[in-house]
Amino acid sequence: MEIQYSKCVENLRSSEIRNMMSVAVRPDIISFAGGMPGNTLFPIKEVEDLYNQLPLSVKQAAFQYGPTGGYPPLIKSLMDYMQRKGMQVEKNRILITTGALQAIDVVNKILLDPGDAVIVEYPTFIGALASFLAHRAKLIPVSMDADGILPDELEKALDSKPAPKMIYLSPYFHNPAGIIYGKKRKEAILKILAGRNIILLEDDCYGELYFNDSDAELCIPMKTVEPESPQICYVSSFSKIMGPGLRIGWLFGPPEIIGKTEVAKQSMDACTSTYVQVLANEFLSSGKLFDYVKWVRGEYKKRAKVMVEALNAFMPPEVTWVNPKGGFYIWLQLPGGVDATDVLKSSLQDGAVFISGKTFDPEGNRNNCLRMAFSNTPEEIIPKGVEIIAKAINRFM
Amino acid sequence: MEIQYSKCVENLRSSEIRNMMSVAVRPDIISFAGGMPGNTLFPIKEVEDLYNQLPLSVKQAAFQYGPTGGYPPLIKSLMDYMQRKGMQVEKNRILITTGALQAIDVVNKILLDPGDAVIVEYPTFIGALASFLAHRAKLIPVSMDADGILPDELEKALDSKPAPKMIYLSPYFHNPAGIIYGKKRKEAILKILAGRNIILLEDDCYGELYFNDSDAELCIPMKTVEPESPQICYVSSFSKIMGPGLRIGWLFGPPEIIGKTEVAKQSMDACTSTYVQVLANEFLSSGKLFDYVKWVRGEYKKRAKVMVEALNAFMPPEVTWVNPKGGFYIWLQLPGGVDATDVLKSSLQDGAVFISGKTFDPEGNRNNCLRMAFSNTPEEIIPKGVEIIAKAINRFM
Repeated sequence: MEIQYSKCVENLRSSEIRNMMSVAVRPDIISFAGGMPGNTLFPIKEVEDLYNQLPLSVKQAAFQYGPTGGYPPLIKSLMDYMQRKGMQVEKNRILITTGALQAIDVVNKILLDPGDAVIVEYPTFIGALASFLAHRAKLIPVSMDADGILPDELEKALDSKPAPKMIYLSPYFHNPAGIIYGKKRKEAILKILAGRNIILLEDDCYGELYFNDSDAELCIPMKTVEPESPQICYVSSFSKIMGPGLRIGWLFGPPEIIGKTEVAKQSMDACTSTYVQVLANEFLSSGKLFDYVKWVRGEYKKRAKVMVEALNAFMPPEVTWVNPKGGFYIWLQLPGGVDATDVLKSSLQDGAVFISGKTFDPEGNRNNCLRMAFSNTPEEIIPKGVEIIAKAINRFM
Repeated sequence: MEIQYSKCVENLRSSEIRNMMSVAVRPDIISFAGGMPGNTLFPIKEVEDLYNQLPLSVKQAAFQYGPTGGYPPLIKSLMDYMQRKGMQVEKNRILITTGALQAIDVVNKILLDPGDAVIVEYPTFIGALASFLAHRAKLIPVSMDADGILPDELEKALDSKPAPKMIYLSPYFHNPAGIIYGKKRKEAILKILAGRNIILLEDDCYGELYFNDSDAELCIPMKTVEPESPQICYVSSFSKIMGPGLRIGWLFGPPEIIGKTEVAKQSMDACTSTYVQVLANEFLSSGKLFDYVKWVRGEYKKRAKVMVEALNAFMPPEVTWVNPKGGFYIWLQLPGGVDATDVLKSSLQDGAVFISGKTFDPEGNRNNCLRMAFSNTPEEIIPKGVEIIAKAINRFM
């Protein structure tokens, strides 16, 4: 029998990240590939202690179905957290999702028909890209500099036909670009978008991970701006501030949109695991999450510093990057004509891996760039990995 | 601004179950509404002990991203379990999903374009129904008797245009119908489907919950039959044999289909929570799951017995049902002209709730029937709830 698949299947894109994740667990390979938190940095003991001391009734709730919208105590804790971040909690609601990716996917589900246009950054997060493509959206990539997407290009993209229904941005320690949007750039973008019939999907999964307190104000979400125009759906996650193995994200947005996504989620996975929602709620509501984040910022800062020093030491001068102020990533621009996949094959043989740039290209082409994650590699190993990759780049210059 | 939603939104159906779930937590209400395991029956202590004694490396894995296909040790444990159930493990693969509903939803995603026809039972599982509708499928309901769907009606449905791409069946302790398919009926169905270009989606979330060992052989999945025709995608879950709060299901099927669903899942939630997959793997691979299931079957058997006795005692003779041999549910047929929503409003005032039949109707109409779950109500409370509902039914006769 021949199976007739849906049209969605033609648009599914399997990512290099999957293959690299299996390589990344080999002990002989130094991996900057996966966008993963440090494996040795998780708050395992804190979470275990919090769970073990819970009353039986809460443990029973953890094993049981919960409301589709989310475990009510976690919704409350997150609303308090959103308020601390300056959000207008009275005007918005929360949907708890199975990771931030599901928050993106469910927004796409209720908004996008095949052929609908979505403005995305180039480069952009591979998970979001996969979801847009699965919904058969028409993607309009807009280039970035060190401050964010380029306002001129954005205006052009907004005027394209059909009129874009959504714009997806990751302004805070961008995956994969590593940058943070400047304050003026965000203002310029909001000014350009104001009054337009478009949804801004603001992805803020890394914003807590600034390296210096003086940069905290750069991380204030666009979602906090009043009056809100265009309408903003804000997405975040416990993945980088607790552990991605929990798969808990959330969508914070206008009640009408949240209501629709909640009904859509009923058809997707009924509800996110109550068990892990209970863990996340205890970690957040006890305040331990904030102590942990404060500590883990310092750990990532150290790793980033070592990687930047190694890049300065080993990379040919034609290779450029932006020194990260937070998050997990550094995005390398290779000299013209150097293909990241060639470099990857070569450096894999010598024992180091990363993700090729084309993985993050909405069109899957541009490849004289690559993403290196410093987040899951111990400081003492980082320089050796950078040296291997630098040698491989040199081979193709 | 006016938001233009996708066409999917027009097809989303919010279910009565959600409203009834919030009512169900009121201590003054006896609830037979939610299709939930007994809140006091979960293996909380066993799972906690298993987790606490894990080595640090496994706990780290629990907090980290895992492969999209599933946590490899759990895939292995499930393959062993599938083999024990008589499955052809060499010819199939597993995708671990966020609940059985996601297994259904991801199959729909890779198979169904808007307007594609799917044969479903009447009545059918509300979650699957919501997913089919969200994918804008054309549903073809086939009626059931106490042995399963009616072969004559099935043949007619198969000949409808456009040719159905999929048939979705829940043969084991059906939700909501409560019945189990007879051996001969399953043979007849497979004979009718043989050689046709259709996928059989076999939902087996309750099959472990038979009340008498002599009925175990009724629970042998159609997926075990050789040669396999049509191709079968088998769906199951930890929800009823461990806890639905974990949200772990799995899809077991032909490698080509599993490969496609795995890439689709990359665009939906990246992977199912590793944390809960670790818990499920420990529970399953240690063998404690089997001890637990053996015990919990007896608990549900007692609850079912009490409910059947109460139905016999209180219901007017015009109300009919099939005594359950396993699972969570009894499906009541009301006398012609009695509307379950009227009955529900009345019995809610007196303090007992259930789910109206139309919730499970693909067309959302037929309502002289209702679902009562005995699974989450202590034995001593069941008779009072049945009495309240019987009185309410009497009022409308």
